[in-house]
Amino acid sequence: MGNTVKYVLDESRIPRAWYNIVADLPSPPPPVLHPGTLQPVGPDDLAPLFPMSLIMQEVTTDREVEIPGPVRDVYRQWRPAPLFRARRLEQALQTPARIYYKYEGVSPAGSHKPNTAVPQAWYNKEAGITRIATETGAGQWGSSLAFAGALFGIEVEVFMVKVSYNQKPYRRALMESYGARCIASPSMETNFGRALLAKSPDNNGSLGIAISEAVEVAASRADTNYALGSVLNHVLLHQTVSGLEAIAQFELADDYPDVIVGCTGGGSNFAGIAFPFLGEQLRGGRKVRIVAVEPAACPSLTRGRYAYDFGDTGHMTPLAKMHTLGSSFMPPGFHAGGLRYHGMAPLVSHVKELGLIEARSYHQTQCFEAGVFFARNEGILPAPEANHAVKGAIDEALRCKEEGVGRTILFNLCGHGHFDMQAYMDYFGGRLTDNTYDESELAMALAGLPSVPEPA
Amino acid sequence: MGNTVKYVLDESRIPRAWYNIVADLPSPPPPVLHPGTLQPVGPDDLAPLFPMSLIMQEVTTDREVEIPGPVRDVYRQWRPAPLFRARRLEQALQTPARIYYKYEGVSPAGSHKPNTAVPQAWYNKEAGITRIATETGAGQWGSSLAFAGALFGIEVEVFMVKVSYNQKPYRRALMESYGARCIASPSMETNFGRALLAKSPDNNGSLGIAISEAVEVAASRADTNYALGSVLNHVLLHQTVSGLEAIAQFELADDYPDVIVGCTGGGSNFAGIAFPFLGEQLRGGRKVRIVAVEPAACPSLTRGRYAYDFGDTGHMTPLAKMHTLGSSFMPPGFHAGGLRYHGMAPLVSHVKELGLIEARSYHQTQCFEAGVFFARNEGILPAPEANHAVKGAIDEALRCKEEGVGRTILFNLCGHGHFDMQAYMDYFGGRLTDNTYDESELAMALAGLPSVPEPA
Repeated sequence: MGNTVKYVLDESRIPRAWYNIVADLPSPPPPVLHPGTLQPVGPDDLAPLFPMSLIMQEVTTDREVEIPGPVRDVYRQWRPAPLFRARRLEQALQTPARIYYKYEGVSPAGSHKPNTAVPQAWYNKEAGITRIATETGAGQWGSSLAFAGALFGIEVEVFMVKVSYNQKPYRRALMESYGARCIASPSMETNFGRALLAKSPDNNGSLGIAISEAVEVAASRADTNYALGSVLNHVLLHQTVSGLEAIAQFELADDYPDVIVGCTGGGSNFAGIAFPFLGEQLRGGRKVRIVAVEPAACPSLTRGRYAYDFGDTGHMTPLAKMHTLGSSFMPPGFHAGGLRYHGMAPLVSHVKELGLIEARSYHQTQCFEAGVFFARNEGILPAPEANHAVKGAIDEALRCKEEGVGRTILFNLCGHGHFDMQAYMDYFGGRLTDNTYDESELAMALAGLPSVPEPA
Repeated sequence: MGNTVKYVLDESRIPRAWYNIVADLPSPPPPVLHPGTLQPVGPDDLAPLFPMSLIMQEVTTDREVEIPGPVRDVYRQWRPAPLFRARRLEQALQTPARIYYKYEGVSPAGSHKPNTAVPQAWYNKEAGITRIATETGAGQWGSSLAFAGALFGIEVEVFMVKVSYNQKPYRRALMESYGARCIASPSMETNFGRALLAKSPDNNGSLGIAISEAVEVAASRADTNYALGSVLNHVLLHQTVSGLEAIAQFELADDYPDVIVGCTGGGSNFAGIAFPFLGEQLRGGRKVRIVAVEPAACPSLTRGRYAYDFGDTGHMTPLAKMHTLGSSFMPPGFHAGGLRYHGMAPLVSHVKELGLIEARSYHQTQCFEAGVFFARNEGILPAPEANHAVKGAIDEALRCKEEGVGRTILFNLCGHGHFDMQAYMDYFGGRLTDNTYDESELAMALAGLPSVPEPA
């Protein structure tokens, strides 16, 4: 029997700098606009929400951004994260493909999110901030920021989408274990939340609503900043620590990916694994196919429009050009809560428009089927979000088998599923449905996109 | 800020042999007896339940037992497990102590149990066995054997204590994800279960009952063996991979433990971390204090009798000399289900009798308090069982502070608490009670111990 092979790096090999793909792109991404003036936002516009260090990371064109020593010190509790060769899975599939996965579930919070939560908390602490407000859907991001806040002595307040707050008490308990405060959103703690609840007391919330509430709290208090777990350039930047490590690990393996697969919600774990490899290609290195896998029920990259849109429901954020289903789009229920967002990271959207990546979508049942197959062969039970990447990788491997070609496939296993067992129970119990959105609702949401004239 | 330091070993440093403390003890442990004849059991008596390779490990006096290549191949997916220096915890406690923890939660099942589940499944497969029956309380063991069974293509049938089966559906779902079958015990699938249910249809089960059912199934079917997750010599043997790695990691750290702390239910994670160090001491190396921490509600080492007893409720197992509360003892409810067993591993009991280890007990609330304090400083949320070791280590560190002495403390963080969030919710909600057993019930259980004459 072949066995799972682990490629480890000494902790001295934790990258000293994050990688910024903007430096290598043939064109820069379109600027983020102020919703009132429709002019590019400047650093001062963002200062009520973020520390200046993160704002500068958001707009920098430097190829490398140094990782602060204290952040690397925390990273090394679980980094470098292992790269595995899934030889048991390869054998079960009887594929000539070589399948590798980078496993980010080794972090204390169980996912890739601490890669950015830790630096975000640290930069805020350096800026004298004592409190951070944020939102969370499934809870991966909220618990990661809670973890990071505990390490640096920063209070963390998490607006959790109400339906998840009620359905996922265990995620909430994890945040509380780290000392964070967790509030069901929409809440009575913000003007936006109160207005929504006045209109519809039974409102179950959405990520867009929770973002609006957290932004409102951060904007109105000097001691409080806002933090986002995906979408923004600096978040994607922090996640590149994963892909940079993977490049070094492939050297150890004496191999190189032909195909890279990642799941996409906001886009950060995908960019984290893919951008460093894409950068090598853009600088004249080997070409690699990059495949973004998204849920068929919330398919921003494959069915959204590339347009300027708000990041939140309450329209408090700047306008970013991205693949979007419209900020009023309400995706149907499915279990990968971390992929339930109307928009896509502007940088991921931009490289998609440039033709540098592909995208495809899957329904959840086929993703759970892939995840269980993976668990029985590789031992790790993936998070529902990660199951999308597993499914994408397995399909690539099966194509190799059909074609009789032995390609090297890399995917990002961005987190374990230990907090998502209800989803697995529903899958085993035959209770999963592959909900789809209503086409007319999508059309309406897209019709509601803000009107932004093309730049001259 | 000081930071958590990780001591890693290259996978070439995974031990090539387990360590058997029997070789170094001043006297051998008393023999296991056949309950009918009261004579020492021979290998043939155990052959209906275990493969001969494991039976020989149970009785060997060799100091080293080679780890088979295929087992090491699986181990290296997560081994060597990291040793951490808890510098953030030290600072929070303002202690001069140096606190280290060996973290076994990095295994796919999230605990130390795969260290023995993998070799047990492998030896059974080598013996041509296609099916293993076992029991589980909290579910750590059952899910680990399910994981190991999936890797080697062995069917796994888990009798899960009914109260846990109902209260912990997520653990069950994890076992099912690995393809195992999980049965609420007592069940209608065994004579013993049917008899119990006929008498008391509402019987909620216990570990002792579930063991009886699994043993009955294994004894009655030629294709089926039995596996136990703790207590037995060969199980403790397999767990020494943890302590052996820790010895090498302390060399890297240029330090050596003065005190080792582990939690004890059946005794396997404790023995795994402690016995290799104790062996060094017995062979003339440095003396180390070793502290077993057990739940005050099920205190076999601190309140039990050192006597021959059955391992199960149905009295199907041989008699082992151990610290026991009596096989009819029903511990009150508490959250560390993995520590809810009436007996203690015969080898741990023996070294306790020899004065080589200490034991103490704690109530669960103070253990959860310690666990949450640990999580907020070290980022990892421990399993309720492991919280007992955390509490013991923190108390040792606080004693160092009082005495102004900088000792080196090592404890085994045997698993993460991601499947135990209900327990944390109960803790935060003030719903934990520190149940104690009834003294008269304990006296009655002890009075029911089998009568075994002292050897001539």
